[in-house]
Amino acid sequence: MQMPQKSTVFVDLSAATMAACGAPYGLISNAAIAVIDGLIDWVGPVADLPESYNSLPKASLGGRLVTPGLIDCHTHIVHGGDRAVEFEMRLNGATYEEVARAGGGIASTVKATRAASEAQLLADALLRVDVLIAEGVTAIEVKSGYGLDTDTELRMLRVARAIMDNRPLIVKTTFLGAHATPSEYAGRADAYIDEVCIPTLRAAHTEGLVDAVDGFCEGIAFQPSQIARVFDVARELGLPVKLHAEQLSNLGGAKLAAQYGALSADHIEYLDQDGVIALANAGTTAVILPGAFYTLRETQAPPIDVLRKHGVPMALATDINPGSSPLNSLLLTLNMGCTLFRMTPEEALRGVTQNAARALGLTDMGTIAAGMRADLAVWDIKHPAELAYRIGFNPLHSRIFSGGIS
Amino acid sequence: MQMPQKSTVFVDLSAATMAACGAPYGLISNAAIAVIDGLIDWVGPVADLPESYNSLPKASLGGRLVTPGLIDCHTHIVHGGDRAVEFEMRLNGATYEEVARAGGGIASTVKATRAASEAQLLADALLRVDVLIAEGVTAIEVKSGYGLDTDTELRMLRVARAIMDNRPLIVKTTFLGAHATPSEYAGRADAYIDEVCIPTLRAAHTEGLVDAVDGFCEGIAFQPSQIARVFDVARELGLPVKLHAEQLSNLGGAKLAAQYGALSADHIEYLDQDGVIALANAGTTAVILPGAFYTLRETQAPPIDVLRKHGVPMALATDINPGSSPLNSLLLTLNMGCTLFRMTPEEALRGVTQNAARALGLTDMGTIAAGMRADLAVWDIKHPAELAYRIGFNPLHSRIFSGGIS
Ligand SMILES: [Zn+2]
Ligand SMILES: [Zn+2]
Repeated sequence: MQMPQKSTVFVDLSAATMAACGAPYGLISNAAIAVIDGLIDWVGPVADLPESYNSLPKASLGGRLVTPGLIDCHTHIVHGGDRAVEFEMRLNGATYEEVARAGGGIASTVKATRAASEAQLLADALLRVDVLIAEGVTAIEVKSGYGLDTDTELRMLRVARAIMDNRPLIVKTTFLGAHATPSEYAGRADAYIDEVCIPTLRAAHTEGLVDAVDGFCEGIAFQPSQIARVFDVARELGLPVKLHAEQLSNLGGAKLAAQYGALSADHIEYLDQDGVIALANAGTTAVILPGAFYTLRETQAPPIDVLRKHGVPMALATDINPGSSPLNSLLLTLNMGCTLFRMTPEEALRGVTQNAARALGLTDMGTIAAGMRADLAVWDIKHPAELAYRIGFNPLHSRIFSGGIS
Repeated sequence: MQMPQKSTVFVDLSAATMAACGAPYGLISNAAIAVIDGLIDWVGPVADLPESYNSLPKASLGGRLVTPGLIDCHTHIVHGGDRAVEFEMRLNGATYEEVARAGGGIASTVKATRAASEAQLLADALLRVDVLIAEGVTAIEVKSGYGLDTDTELRMLRVARAIMDNRPLIVKTTFLGAHATPSEYAGRADAYIDEVCIPTLRAAHTEGLVDAVDGFCEGIAFQPSQIARVFDVARELGLPVKLHAEQLSNLGGAKLAAQYGALSADHIEYLDQDGVIALANAGTTAVILPGAFYTLRETQAPPIDVLRKHGVPMALATDINPGSSPLNSLLLTLNMGCTLFRMTPEEALRGVTQNAARALGLTDMGTIAAGMRADLAVWDIKHPAELAYRIGFNPLHSRIFSGGIS
């Protein structure tokens, strides 16, 4: 969806720029934001607005608070089916084995995704995407990983790209062939990596469908050595990597990710101090996913204090997926980051703006600053902490995408 | 807001009636619901629809799933101000003492509520009410308890009643003068009960503002003997009682509530087996409030298994309030009831329909059955478990209030 790129001066607003300016949240009261051709050209106190912008049309935001457009940097938003019946079976006392025998678990999502047409996958994804857009989200990441065969992995990535043609939203795609071993390769994970995952990555890259490469490094998924083979190909293709690491146990995934200069290491509940230092040295962003922690009733929280101490940038994301995190709200994720993990409201907001952009390797969004895309969220609140404080309340007034209200 | 009371036959729907019919959720596929003058006159399989309804206009619900309108049976939705700054202070490491010195805690909400006009309190409450209505809620309970003086308690209750004049929604009011001791009575809780709480209850009752009487029985609030004095007056006035009981410790509040034949005992994280049996024998409903449990990072869950074993009806509610539960979503409450407390999706849905009505003493709502109000929620889902499974996604298609789509 091509939106007209607007030139406007937004006035009568407070800006939580999330850029370094000394104040918490990079807050500028009585601010103006000058936008030229969809990019921010200037931001500062309205009293300092250069006269050169006088020729642009002015738009009042009614004294409201403006933040960068929100960014959901870890989603599995493209998938077939849902797992509500499995959710109910578990709560009625079924064991994991019984659920698996009934066709549950990730296998059921793989089956439903393989069976779904591109049009159906897109229609289903857009229902979820629209909920995020209504919360002021202007960019999302979307992973493959429920096809686990070449056709379906490519179809998922095409659908992810198609979201951008249908909604005013930036979408970054991540190839996650190394998500699980499909049943036809049961017990032959190495063969799946070599015969399906890597050839599919090459095919997807040739089609221009891949912005980054991801894997699931875990006892129930893939070993570091298997992930490394996929990352080697990513490196050869010039693609950045990220990793589902240390979610359920510590296999050293974060260190592996750091060795490859990964954009991000995600989940990391079981990350130890050595792993934190490895991320810090590599400049890798920690992506915190409280929705999965909450849904799985995990008790080990990610080491937020240690990450903070070592200056590892922290992002926050929904991880929206039909199994471990059917969480369709990035605002609720802010609250979970604070309530469950004791992140501060400012860290939480930075986690879905500046650091979420960082986790995706994006340098043109995530703060309100000259040169950035004019993707903004306008809120009916007085203080930015309200975004994390409320639970299940959406105070979005309007969303600005590429300089235009959308 | 007086709505026209409609007569219609709704067809092309599945009905999760929540009434006893042998099937989970009281589910009837291919159902019809005949409504006369805003009340359900008949419900059953469309094939069995009596011919006598042929003269009524028919309305198709497009094959969707219909449930009773949802009921939020425990809210503090009328209040002044918010506590976002206090939320942030705590996460930045402030102690409770520091927060209190900065004017935080319940005292800040009392101050903001006392300072707010009736119009302001109503406008603020309606913002929150509208979020519930958008989730298919057709009835709510509203408590006083942030005034703690006669004028403000009465003002809160008038605002609660005024919600009904402004929105298509049933509102039941609860007098909660025994919520906290205001600062002007610090250390003199008994005097507050006798000089303010009880006279205010009498005044509010005289003005017709009270449907039930509540208290907060806890070490930080009131002792059972103090609550009993309030309940004695409620009994004298012919008003039913309910109680915030066993939330942070076990003071025997549930037993006290049972002695007074309370409609409900609410929170009950620390309820023991004797207390459960007392509730069971009294026919008192247990109101489960996972939003406060989540926000306070409580680790002791209410004894769901024991309640289930003894057949105590369980309701679920938001407890929406600016301090311990800024939770504005009843759908999210369903998920929390399942995820945090292992309620089943059916128990959760019953908790916001049939048993929520029971907790309010309402006999004309909560199930889809002849004689009930035609207050219904129409959902874009296939299976009722989806309502509890999703997090932060609202699949409401439309809401029917008193027989009319609203
Ligand atoms: Zn993931
Ligand atoms: Zn309460």
